[in-house]
Formats: sequence, C-alpha cells, structure tokens
Amino acid sequence: VHRPNSGDQGLHAAPLDPVTDRGVDEFEAIDGLRARFERAARARVPNGPIPPPGELWIGDDAAVVAPTGQAPLVLATDLVVGGVHVDLELCSPSDIGYKAMMVTVSDLAAMGARPDYALLSMAAPAGTDLDALGQGVAEAAAVCGCVVVGGDLSAGAVLVVSMAVAGSLDPADHPGADLGADAGSGGTGLTRSGARPGDALVVTGPLGASAAGLRLLRHGRPGQGDDGRFDALSQAYRRPTARVAEGRLARRCGATAAVDVSDGLLADVGHLLDASGVGAALFDIPAAAGATTEEAQGGGEEYELVIATPDPEGMAAAFRGEGLRPFHIIGRCTDRPGERLLDGRPIETTGWRHRF
Amino acid sequence: VHRPNSGDQGLHAAPLDPVTDRGVDEFEAIDGLRARFERAARARVPNGPIPPPGELWIGDDAAVVAPTGQAPLVLATDLVVGGVHVDLELCSPSDIGYKAMMVTVSDLAAMGARPDYALLSMAAPAGTDLDALGQGVAEAAAVCGCVVVGGDLSAGAVLVVSMAVAGSLDPADHPGADLGADAGSGGTGLTRSGARPGDALVVTGPLGASAAGLRLLRHGRPGQGDDGRFDALSQAYRRPTARVAEGRLARRCGATAAVDVSDGLLADVGHLLDASGVGAALFDIPAAAGATTEEAQGGGEEYELVIATPDPEGMAAAFRGEGLRPFHIIGRCTDRPGERLLDGRPIETTGWRHRF
Repeated sequence: VHRPNSGDQGLHAAPLDPVTDRGVDEFEAIDGLRARFERAARARVPNGPIPPPGELWIGDDAAVVAPTGQAPLVLATDLVVGGVHVDLELCSPSDIGYKAMMVTVSDLAAMGARPDYALLSMAAPAGTDLDALGQGVAEAAAVCGCVVVGGDLSAGAVLVVSMAVAGSLDPADHPGADLGADAGSGGTGLTRSGARPGDALVVTGPLGASAAGLRLLRHGRPGQGDDGRFDALSQAYRRPTARVAEGRLARRCGATAAVDVSDGLLADVGHLLDASGVGAALFDIPAAAGATTEEAQGGGEEYELVIATPDPEGMAAAFRGEGLRPFHIIGRCTDRPGERLLDGRPIETTGWRHRF
Repeated sequence: VHRPNSGDQGLHAAPLDPVTDRGVDEFEAIDGLRARFERAARARVPNGPIPPPGELWIGDDAAVVAPTGQAPLVLATDLVVGGVHVDLELCSPSDIGYKAMMVTVSDLAAMGARPDYALLSMAAPAGTDLDALGQGVAEAAAVCGCVVVGGDLSAGAVLVVSMAVAGSLDPADHPGADLGADAGSGGTGLTRSGARPGDALVVTGPLGASAAGLRLLRHGRPGQGDDGRFDALSQAYRRPTARVAEGRLARRCGATAAVDVSDGLLADVGHLLDASGVGAALFDIPAAAGATTEEAQGGGEEYELVIATPDPEGMAAAFRGEGLRPFHIIGRCTDRPGERLLDGRPIETTGWRHRF
C-alpha cells in the first residue's frame, strides 16, 4: 500500500485538501483493512503464517507473492484522483495518464522489481480526452518497458485513474548474481524492513522539484530568464520518473532496504526506519535547483528512491558503471530505534495522510 | 476489458444515467486506447506479433500473459463507481465492496481461470465506512478463494472502488487433463473467440434477477408474502456471485468460448459471437422468478456465464458430478456470421455503453 499525494499538507490549496480533523486516519484505516484481509485469507491458507513464508502482502511498497512452482510476482496499485493528486487546471490529460502509470511503477522500482504488465482502470466525466490520457499512459509504459494489457473504463463524476502493475524480480538482479551465487531464488525484493545499523541512507536525486513545480504552476511563471527552471520543475510535478533502473541495480548491489519518496522525504524515511527497527542521523538533504529546504524535506510525489546500503562506495561505482545519475548520501542508520536526527537535531517524520 | 453496468439503459433512473447523445462511445474509446497501447508495446516487444503468441491483451474478459518460463498469468480489473454502477441509497458499503470483488473475479471466471491475488484501489469521500466496505471485499475474497495482498486508498469526492485480480489457469482444468493428454500447457483459457458452428450455447443460471432486484429496490418491497423473492432478487443486485467453479469446469470439459453476463445477455452473447465469427439461433432464455422477459434478455450485472460447447450432454453430466446447478441451453451457433435469431426472429444485440 502506497500513498501518493501532491506534496506535504502545506502545499495543498484549500479546495484540494481532503484533510479534516474529524474522520478516520488513512493509516488506521489501512491497518483495519489489513487485519480483515489477513483473516479472510484463511479460506485460502488454512494453516501456517499469513502471509506465507517468502511473501509480502499489505505494508510495503508492493506485494510479493509466490505462486507454487513459479517465480515471485510483484503487484502494486495506485490511484490518481482529480482534485486530490492532480490539479486538473495544471495538468493535461496526457500528464495525468503519464503520472498514473509512473507512480504505480515507482512502487515496483522501490522493490527492485521490473514492471511487466499493467492494467488501467478509469472513471471519467463526459468530455474527458480519453485518447490524450491514454497517450500519456502509453508513453510512460514505453519508458518503463511495461505493457498495458487490459483495463476497465467507466463514466464517473470525478476523474479517477487507477493503475495496477504486475512485475518480476529478475534473477540477474539478485544480490550476488554477479558472484555466481544462487541466483535462482527471487527473494522478496528490496523491502522497507531490511536496513541495519551502520547502513548508509542514500537518495537517487535532489528533492523538492515536484513540490516546487506545483508552487510555480499555482503562482505563475517566474520572471524572464527562468523559463528553463520553470519547465524542469513543472515537469517534475507533471511527469515524474520512476527509478526502475536504480532500484534494480541497488538490489543487485546488496542494498538492504528501499522506499520511494511519495509522501515526502522525511515521512518516507520514517516508514523505512520504522519497518527496519532502526534509527537514523540525517544530513545534507539535496534540494533541487529552485526548491526550498522545506520542499526538499517534506514535498511529496518525488518518486526518487531512498535506499539503505552497507556499501555506498560499491553501489556508487555500479551506478557510474551503468551511466545512472550519482546518488546522494543523506545519512546513516543507527541502532537506536525511534531516533530521528537531522543535522544533529531531533525531528518529526510525519507526512501527508488522507482522512475519511 | 469488461464493462460492468447496473442494467440496460432502460433500467437507469435519470440521475444515474451517464449516457448522452454527445461524446465518445465506450467501445470506440477502448479501440483507440488499445491501438495506442499496442504501439507502445514495441518498446518491450520489438519484433513479432503483438500480443505475442500465447497471450491475450485487451479485448477479452481478462488478459492472459505468459512470462518467459512461467505459467500463464490471467489479469483483470474492474471499477465500481458510486452513482453509476451502484446506487448508494440501495447498497451498503459492505455490498459495494462485495460487488467490486465479485465483478472482477467474474472476468477470470469467464476465462476458466482461478482467482489468486487481488489489489484494492479506492477513492472515498469523507465519512465512508471503509471498514464495512473492506468487510464486503474480504467476504467475497474468501468465497472466491482469493487473497487481497495490497491496495491504495485515497480521499476523493466520489466513491470509486477498483479491484485488480491476478489468477492462473490450473493445469488440472486443461481440456483433456482427465484423459492424460498434455496438461502442461495452460493455453490462453476460455476466450470469447473459440465458438464454432454447431456448438450449443448455455447459460449457468436464470437471468434478470439483478435487474429485477434493482427495480424492486427502487420501487419498494412487494406486498405481503413476497419477502423471500424480494430478498433473493435484491441480493442478486447487491451481492452477485462470480461463477468460478462453473468456468473452470467448462474449460476442463472442452468448452470452446465463454463470456460473463455483465452488459446484458443479448449484448454479451453478441460479443462472443462477434469474437468467434459465428451466428446464433437463441431460444428459451431462462428468466429468474420475478424477473421480466426484458430483464432476462437485457438486464446486466448478472455474472452468470454464457458458454459455448460442442458437448452439452457431457458438460451437464460433469456439472451434476461436481454438484453445480444445472445450466440452461439457450441456443446453438450457426455458420452465418452476423446472424442473430431469437425464437426464430432477427434481433439486435446491443447493450449498455458508457459515453464520455
């Protein structure tokens, strides 16, 4: 389960902001649903642990299931809702399609998985340019090497685009595959829960571009001469990139954990640390050119990956070798669970939450 | 791609009816999207036919993909949209969850596939009882032997519940598995396109119950003494049943084609006949107790299966042997493509279409 958003709470204008003080918190709701679905799974898994050994269900970036005798299957779904995740005034239909595909693939990227097959499920008001929307989905699918094999289309009062993606854990990406070790087992991919004290935390790119792009789009173009930056930042908001190659290579390099930056860097690092039962001392969080420190630390919808690795030097060399952008070291895991330091000072790591 | 609906056009009250004379027809939109997605697939499949041999993409009840060296994977997604597919005044949140799961599984049932893993993607307005909705999803999943392994949850102005299901083609269901023939290949399941002249057309149960249930729910309970019928019909609308066992057994018995009755019997039979390039002479369409002839022929959201088989007697014996309800023979395929006869008279086979 993954929670996309269009920036931290402060970035939402009032009419787009579904947060209220009343109602059920998103994470509480998910915990309740998870318990229900695990109980219901007894119909299929009468004995033994749920999920079965080697499987991951609700709670990480994507689910990993292992059909008997088959390679593991990585499954994820994400929603883009008009007026919540995308401001329909600021994004074209093609941008929305592109984004819906990318944010879902990003969940697989954060597992070190390869996206293979996608389904598009969409409710759209009359007058929606479905062809342009489909063009955006198709462009993103081509970039990700994923194919759209089915879908469902309905009338609806509000635009809702849901993608589901099925992917795989390439045995060639298995840690140690280079060394001739047993690469037959796909494992469960790069979970959120494997980080260990001493691991470096890295991020695959500078942050805050998406939030800064949304800010600029809302408040108009900057002055003369800033068009290049405006275009780059607005593109980061409208057409994010899932870091598939980075996730796969990190897994191959023996990274211990990963998460994508969808709720905001500090929030998502918090998810990884909580799941791994470690603390962290963070520093030097890289801001994209034109983004504020607040946007870099708290802006969501980035889709860069945060990766924990015991061997940042080796991974850096591998990134260079594959021609990927260099990543940024932003901290180190500590053996004090709950510890959250930024530049030596304790911080909160909460982010965007939907309320119902 | 599958098009759920809440009955034929005549059954929609005005505020629920998204059909207009303007805009793009659903099937035209799907054809356009299909062409786009197939072109984009060249990024992954540079040479050879698209879809690759042994795969089915957009156009049948579900997609069938065949990852290298793995058993075929059957994928489908469906939407339930508040105010379009479900009248929120007539269905509880738990009914909506139940229905969303069942209508998606029904697409797999129509392929003779087994549902394995489901993802729940949901946009919900504040105040939605997510726990009750999840309970309905969990109940339906348990009935289908499917497990919910992930999802996404968002705020949204309108309730939209999208499910995606991944399933498999059990080698034991392969035609000829009983005879010791090659049961290793999963094939592409029970498509819409395999019916041949002379095949019998059968339906797994009487029809019109869902449409009649909607009618009764809209116009109030019948008089004294009809409570049993009211309950049965309203339940058919609120909590349909996917015919998974029937689809799997039909495949095992060598059925040639199948489709689920989601758009209305005549419309869905039309889809099967068009895909198979055959005609049909229909007769004796069974109406559920309390349903009108029009509801039986045109009411959607039934989720009974229409199956084409060269051996209805053998299949009937197999259904008896497994303790399944007897199916109804409703016609025979002819060698005149485009021929559509009902009780000897030519008919139109159009059904519900969303417009955009």
